[in-house]
Amino acid sequence: MENVSQQFDIIVIGGGPAGYHFANLAAKKGFLVALFEEKSLGGTCLNEGCIPSKALLKSAKIVDGITNSEHYGISVGDFSVNQESVILRKNEIVSKLVMGVRGGLRKNKVKLFFTHADILKKQEGLYYVSSNEKIYSAEKLIIATGSKVFIPKIEGVEFGLQSGFVLTSTEILNLDIIPNRLVVIGGGIIGLEMASYFASVGSAVTVIEAAEKTCGLLDNEISSLLVKNLSKKGISFVLNAKVSSINDNGITYIKDDQTIDLQCDKVLLSVGRVANVTGFGLENLDVEFTNRGITVNECMQTNDSSVYAIGDVNGKVMLAHTAYREAEVSFNHIINNKDVLDYETIPSVLYTSPECAWVGVSEEDVVKKSLDVTVKKLPMIYSGRFVAESSGVDGLCKIFIDNKKNTIIGAAILADGASELIVAISNLIIMQTPIDKINSLIFPHPTVGEIIKDVLNS
Amino acid sequence: MENVSQQFDIIVIGGGPAGYHFANLAAKKGFLVALFEEKSLGGTCLNEGCIPSKALLKSAKIVDGITNSEHYGISVGDFSVNQESVILRKNEIVSKLVMGVRGGLRKNKVKLFFTHADILKKQEGLYYVSSNEKIYSAEKLIIATGSKVFIPKIEGVEFGLQSGFVLTSTEILNLDIIPNRLVVIGGGIIGLEMASYFASVGSAVTVIEAAEKTCGLLDNEISSLLVKNLSKKGISFVLNAKVSSINDNGITYIKDDQTIDLQCDKVLLSVGRVANVTGFGLENLDVEFTNRGITVNECMQTNDSSVYAIGDVNGKVMLAHTAYREAEVSFNHIINNKDVLDYETIPSVLYTSPECAWVGVSEEDVVKKSLDVTVKKLPMIYSGRFVAESSGVDGLCKIFIDNKKNTIIGAAILADGASELIVAISNLIIMQTPIDKINSLIFPHPTVGEIIKDVLNS
Repeated sequence: MENVSQQFDIIVIGGGPAGYHFANLAAKKGFLVALFEEKSLGGTCLNEGCIPSKALLKSAKIVDGITNSEHYGISVGDFSVNQESVILRKNEIVSKLVMGVRGGLRKNKVKLFFTHADILKKQEGLYYVSSNEKIYSAEKLIIATGSKVFIPKIEGVEFGLQSGFVLTSTEILNLDIIPNRLVVIGGGIIGLEMASYFASVGSAVTVIEAAEKTCGLLDNEISSLLVKNLSKKGISFVLNAKVSSINDNGITYIKDDQTIDLQCDKVLLSVGRVANVTGFGLENLDVEFTNRGITVNECMQTNDSSVYAIGDVNGKVMLAHTAYREAEVSFNHIINNKDVLDYETIPSVLYTSPECAWVGVSEEDVVKKSLDVTVKKLPMIYSGRFVAESSGVDGLCKIFIDNKKNTIIGAAILADGASELIVAISNLIIMQTPIDKINSLIFPHPTVGEIIKDVLNS
Repeated sequence: MENVSQQFDIIVIGGGPAGYHFANLAAKKGFLVALFEEKSLGGTCLNEGCIPSKALLKSAKIVDGITNSEHYGISVGDFSVNQESVILRKNEIVSKLVMGVRGGLRKNKVKLFFTHADILKKQEGLYYVSSNEKIYSAEKLIIATGSKVFIPKIEGVEFGLQSGFVLTSTEILNLDIIPNRLVVIGGGIIGLEMASYFASVGSAVTVIEAAEKTCGLLDNEISSLLVKNLSKKGISFVLNAKVSSINDNGITYIKDDQTIDLQCDKVLLSVGRVANVTGFGLENLDVEFTNRGITVNECMQTNDSSVYAIGDVNGKVMLAHTAYREAEVSFNHIINNKDVLDYETIPSVLYTSPECAWVGVSEEDVVKKSLDVTVKKLPMIYSGRFVAESSGVDGLCKIFIDNKKNTIIGAAILADGASELIVAISNLIIMQTPIDKINSLIFPHPTVGEIIKDVLNS
């Protein structure tokens, strides 16, 4: 092909966690890497997902502290939340971290293009990509185009989105008012975190979930207890309910064959995300994909062996830390380093108040798959630190032990601190550490994490 | 000996973490165990140490949130801390947890005596203990009498203690007023935690430390950065200073050959603790001990093979989680289970705001012992969660890698969350996990703990 502006070893399309991590790894090893990002480095996670939500939730923690202050011996007069300031602070944090990502990529000499990229074709072993009226080529192509919000077919949803009455996770993180009444459609991670935030800062929140439980893959018992705790914060839950329409000032849902109208001031639509497989010329290659994502093998390789799909776009597990690992696994495959990613050992974290984290099998998996597993559990009041710091919270720690291997194969914890300590458990799962060995480990006192050893010995 | 009221397999003297954990372990395995505790189950840790301080520090966290609320988009009017309520809540928490310990011991059928015990003698393989005018015997004796506050020889200290002007860690946890000016003598873990608490709730706090740094075993760089952060909270630090006298309304210290008077309203004395080796008849056995504690081997066995000393009383590492492990190691020795405790892998946690945690070697150890170690570090701003949640804090993560073994042998983290995530690092140290393997582990995003992988790859 004529007029190729620059030839690279590797072209990466998409600068989210998967794309930028891959680009850094490859550039550090001496590959000439181009990274195309049309929006903002850091992708959904950094710009409109994990990080901005954590910035908001930090403000919510302070509000929760104020709301419960009397219990802790503190009297507080009036207080108010300035949502504009909360959003401003969030934006500053995002800008700072985006600059950090850019600094890292530049330091590693990744060639950055802040433009849209289109795959043109594969020819004689090279991939051609056009961007901003120029053409670039590379021997390998990494697709890391991420995902977008899934918009379900609900009557009135499109009009609601246009009018601003209905928000997705993208828009709600920039909402500079606190709605009096917020309806959250979808009780997954994003829905629950935003429900927790807005309940803390004063909204009357109702979560409508189609399934019989929140957070699909979370252990049922922990999920129920989480709902109980969030209900104490004033969040209403409607499970097994289907939203049938959205109008100007509310929604209509169907539950138990009853049609119920619910008025509100804003609606958050958080029923899932779908892989971004269109709009960048993927169809110009012979790469297999479906609406659920680009098909890859265990090394993130597509059916075209020089094309890899990493992060949300392969539709496997849409979490940033999965994306990072997929970047590592695919790059290690390219340089012939053995590396595998066991999807069963990926931890999940819910940054609600209280926090919740889990990894591996749940009690439902044990029953469904007839696993030879011992389920052990203790309420969190067995942890001195939890008692000292989490008055009024019903916490629980469950651990699933493989009876044959005598190792942990799953855990779920509902308690603040779970986000930081779950990695200790996922490591024990990955390394298949025998229970006897775990018993000789030292859990500092007083920590929430000590409960792990207590549960194992209960 | 005549008139033995009851014969046991094992007598445990002292119901703190070491003693009650040992008693539970032994009773669960069918041993007939007596536990003597003259004050309150749970020992120093639960009644006047780890747990009560964490209860207070939780209130401080809320106050810190209020103090910094404007930064997080929240406007708060007046607020006040009712120290009496803080202490009341602390007492409720302690009572609840003490009841929990008692419940566990009773469930395991440990025979509990809430009386003082005196060792009388060893005779024909049996140990005789008197308590409340009765005599008990056992084949094995576990000494878990803990430690007490060390009172240094400072002019006026005894009078100050009597008048209530000078407090130890025991009394300050029951102080129901907030002193305007507090002087803390000794910048170790207890001193810094209490300094952090009282600075948060409004005291003007000065920490006087005899050494050139705070927290002796903590890495120098992290210690300096911690002082910088605590100084931002308004705490004054006077290092390399020796308190020469305490008078009615202040103290006098000597620094750089200058004698300086410092007025204050209360003094906290926190220069260390000493093993409790007297007052319970230890001298009636032929067990070796010094003022620093009872001499034990790696199995916690004294020179008398049927007498073990566990917890603070052996003077090794005065931490509750060490005490738990020493209980396990000694019990496993009795039942011939192989178990060892590597003191190099015991984590330490400082629950100041910000938190700090460390384990294994420090940079000073590396230099002093000429270790073949690579020191890696990153400021905490590399962690998205830290940036989102810890505005205004200077955090740092340092990791020490053994170049020959290619494993981690030390780490120190200054950042909130460090308390819960340090166990993940100490586990990697204990299990000697190779760095390559650590790189394949999955650290959930966004967590403070992710920094570990970033540091390793920096």
